[in-house]
Amino acid sequence: MAKKNNKQLKVVFLGGVGEIGKNMTAIEYGDNILIVDCGGMFATYETPGVDLITPDFSYIDENADKVKGIVLTHGHEDHIGGLPYLVKDRLDKVKIYGSDLTLALVRHKFKEHGIDSPKFVSVKGGETRSIGCFEAEFVTVTHSISGAFAVAVRTPVGVIFFTGDFKVDYTPIDGESIDLPRLAQIGDEGVKLMLGESTNIERDGFTMSEQKVGATIERIVESNRDSRIIIATFASNVNRIQQIINICQKYGRKVAFNGRSMKNISEIAVKLGIMKADDGTIVDIEDIRRFAPGELCIITTGSQGEPMSALTRMASGDDKVAIGPKDLIVISSSPIPGNEKLIYTVINNLYRRGARVMYGSLAELHVSGHACKEELKLMLRLIRPQFFIPVHGEYRHLKQHEELAVRLGIPESNIAIPEIGAVFELKPRSLVRRDNVSAGNIYVDGLNDVDDIVLQDRQQLSRDGVIVVLVSMGLDTKTQLAPPEVITRGISIGEDFLEPIKGVVAEAIDKVNYRGARDRGRLKASVRRQVTKYVANKLKQKPMVLPIITEVDNA
Amino acid sequence: MAKKNNKQLKVVFLGGVGEIGKNMTAIEYGDNILIVDCGGMFATYETPGVDLITPDFSYIDENADKVKGIVLTHGHEDHIGGLPYLVKDRLDKVKIYGSDLTLALVRHKFKEHGIDSPKFVSVKGGETRSIGCFEAEFVTVTHSISGAFAVAVRTPVGVIFFTGDFKVDYTPIDGESIDLPRLAQIGDEGVKLMLGESTNIERDGFTMSEQKVGATIERIVESNRDSRIIIATFASNVNRIQQIINICQKYGRKVAFNGRSMKNISEIAVKLGIMKADDGTIVDIEDIRRFAPGELCIITTGSQGEPMSALTRMASGDDKVAIGPKDLIVISSSPIPGNEKLIYTVINNLYRRGARVMYGSLAELHVSGHACKEELKLMLRLIRPQFFIPVHGEYRHLKQHEELAVRLGIPESNIAIPEIGAVFELKPRSLVRRDNVSAGNIYVDGLNDVDDIVLQDRQQLSRDGVIVVLVSMGLDTKTQLAPPEVITRGISIGEDFLEPIKGVVAEAIDKVNYRGARDRGRLKASVRRQVTKYVANKLKQKPMVLPIITEVDNA
Repeated sequence: MAKKNNKQLKVVFLGGVGEIGKNMTAIEYGDNILIVDCGGMFATYETPGVDLITPDFSYIDENADKVKGIVLTHGHEDHIGGLPYLVKDRLDKVKIYGSDLTLALVRHKFKEHGIDSPKFVSVKGGETRSIGCFEAEFVTVTHSISGAFAVAVRTPVGVIFFTGDFKVDYTPIDGESIDLPRLAQIGDEGVKLMLGESTNIERDGFTMSEQKVGATIERIVESNRDSRIIIATFASNVNRIQQIINICQKYGRKVAFNGRSMKNISEIAVKLGIMKADDGTIVDIEDIRRFAPGELCIITTGSQGEPMSALTRMASGDDKVAIGPKDLIVISSSPIPGNEKLIYTVINNLYRRGARVMYGSLAELHVSGHACKEELKLMLRLIRPQFFIPVHGEYRHLKQHEELAVRLGIPESNIAIPEIGAVFELKPRSLVRRDNVSAGNIYVDGLNDVDDIVLQDRQQLSRDGVIVVLVSMGLDTKTQLAPPEVITRGISIGEDFLEPIKGVVAEAIDKVNYRGARDRGRLKASVRRQVTKYVANKLKQKPMVLPIITEVDNA
Repeated sequence: MAKKNNKQLKVVFLGGVGEIGKNMTAIEYGDNILIVDCGGMFATYETPGVDLITPDFSYIDENADKVKGIVLTHGHEDHIGGLPYLVKDRLDKVKIYGSDLTLALVRHKFKEHGIDSPKFVSVKGGETRSIGCFEAEFVTVTHSISGAFAVAVRTPVGVIFFTGDFKVDYTPIDGESIDLPRLAQIGDEGVKLMLGESTNIERDGFTMSEQKVGATIERIVESNRDSRIIIATFASNVNRIQQIINICQKYGRKVAFNGRSMKNISEIAVKLGIMKADDGTIVDIEDIRRFAPGELCIITTGSQGEPMSALTRMASGDDKVAIGPKDLIVISSSPIPGNEKLIYTVINNLYRRGARVMYGSLAELHVSGHACKEELKLMLRLIRPQFFIPVHGEYRHLKQHEELAVRLGIPESNIAIPEIGAVFELKPRSLVRRDNVSAGNIYVDGLNDVDDIVLQDRQQLSRDGVIVVLVSMGLDTKTQLAPPEVITRGISIGEDFLEPIKGVVAEAIDKVNYRGARDRGRLKASVRRQVTKYVANKLKQKPMVLPIITEVDNA
């Protein structure tokens, strides 16, 4: 019986479904587990103080010895950001497969986390690797980062195809176009199950080529010869940065990088030979004073208004690069939902310093890295999977991707929408739902993980603050020795309310027949309840009430 | 000297400049102050727990006896939301001027705040009223709420023209088009200073007519005859709701309203005769079970995903209206920046209940109520002001509106960009900056106002929680009587860290030569500093540390 169970092919969803971010999937057959991607997700105002959210790795913990390899589709944070937390002290011996750029980015991350000797296997598009009982074939796709792959995994039950993140760029900057013929051949071979990314399912038509952005930036550089041009974009978009370098060389500008990740990634990309610049084009950000505004272009991080980023520092006057009327700032990105307020604050501040700012969708300053509807159709038509599971999206994305697949002729019964923790068994003729595994979010905060209760406390604290009530009970008299001390933070309570609160505390004590330490819990609960009630009634607020009981020997 | 000062004409900006929301401007001449609008602003994640933000009324407090009237351009929250807080116990005797709908909405608000006998003066487009030494003329404009005015104020120094919020809708639903001829005549008369709204300055072209939305909704109703249709939109957009009623009558559907403000405003609008429905068209939300899905349309609040709104409740299964596969939900609005996550969560939940959802910009489900660039140009060309101050926008909007005005021939020296608290003196030949007045934000929280320090505390609490350290000092021994008690909330500190923290507290006590109550402050500071430092080093977190010192008689 146990033996028979071992021979199921299971697909386990650990992240990136029902959400945007922290993509992670595992496929399991007998004693073989292959992990595809391990992303992180950035915190929002719903998770205050949290540095990063990673998948919950409980399932991997229980099955660590089965893991034969980790395959990475590309080097974006939502596909590799959780990797150090997954690998450290758990999978240090497991091989990690990816493109040169992806692995270089992971190596950099591992160094920061003190992970010493990872087992990296560099692969190129078109190559296949045996990983346990699986064969993984890496297929070149275009995306907003170089070295991106779709992955076809040959399993004992059939081919499982991961699209990864992709767009169909027929004219990519690095010449490495999406390998459509190979995708068609894999479709010919017969794909049992396809996991398709859904990020841009809401958008009709096709995503524009990255070249569009280059054309826009060239027009800007051409017609602003006296301005210093500062371009904010994603550090990982090596192709866009390459285009900017090419344009600057054409118009006689030097290029300087600002922001930690911009410097890191461009250094890595130059080293790998996927970013090229003539000698002398790239200058150090410390040396920019040597050049007139019209001779310089600064490429910087901060296109999302991230609080600690270089552009945010420049906008608020905290950076070595001082912004003024000679500057033209170009925001080459779109705000990720939730970041609008941050980036607009930065733009307002740049304007306040007298600079000009170009942003928004009017000019073609940014193209997405993800397939729109027509490209998603193209992928489904090439791969022609028997079963389909939409991934990488919130529920609405997955649902609309399902509807799209149905319109292309895949029966609704052959499509499933997963949530985090969902497990599907792939059989020769069916896709069957199995019991969920334990999965969810890990909130990384400083050097700690915090849990939901801590986050709920933080939310309560942030809405209505905290009231600490110190009660000093006499050891003998069993009554208060002195009026309670009331300390508030994050709530404004006037003097006229502090005295009544002390009265409420006295009543709460009266209600408990306090006979010493064993009644402390009841006394605390009583104080908490009465004070909470009083403040809710009088002030319409619900602060956290923290009673502290001390006992004083008043013999 | 004092006499001469009295005869300055001052324009005082109390809100709505450098921000979107809580619009409020005052003009002052001698002993006459006229207030134009008094809006509120909704809280964001930067102001947790806050219910509403209003302008700081200090300037009005100092000059309350001079206020001769309050003019309201229209009834949106960002123009009337602060009014109850301004009027109550301060300007109860001052006349308030506005359209029937605006005043009805204010009256409803005042009732909730227990403001009894406001002095309302109902005005119509084309009418003029004397208010102190000023003459205010109300000019009909189109906007996303009925009864919207621009206001031309004749002052001893010349005409000051407030555009209010507007768009140029040539085919409005209620037939009351923007009075372009009158705007041109006012321009002929000569406008000294124009205050122009800037909300949509970033958008090229013209804003579509409200009729576009009607056409879209009609197509949807026509082609979904078996579905129950639920339309979420702004309760104050009476014209849109009127269109939906008309369409439902044509296609034989009943209309039910869901959500408190939707019920309130539609009731008010029907009473005023600006919303009309055949007998029997509008049914009570409690009675909807009597109708088949195809016979019913529910118009609901919650188009921004507001947490307590009807649509949010329906999406999470907490409302009397149960959502299922027979429902088609139409979101007839665009997310206001910052609300994206909220509304997408609602949409995900609606999909999870099996409903279909239409939203976003693909279909023409929403048009803005604000003028785009071409309309802003039209307004400037009609009014032809000598001086221009862009208002109602963040700094980037105001700056771009300035650039637009310069392109239309207004000299840059005749344009000023104000911030909150800014004061300008309008002279016959110049616009002169004067000292700012005290102004800013009031954060209304429950029945209280909270200040910046409270909000800063809340933000610290929400990021990293709180550590309460109770230190019991012996009255005689001047040393700790017992180990300190350490209580944490919103931070997870393992047992292995609690003990060392107690050691740190002991060290902190040693550093202070404690001799009793007079040293309490120094002891607290020492404990706070040492514990903060320890936690920052060991956990990379910065919780709020609250030391409490008790003294125990250990004689």
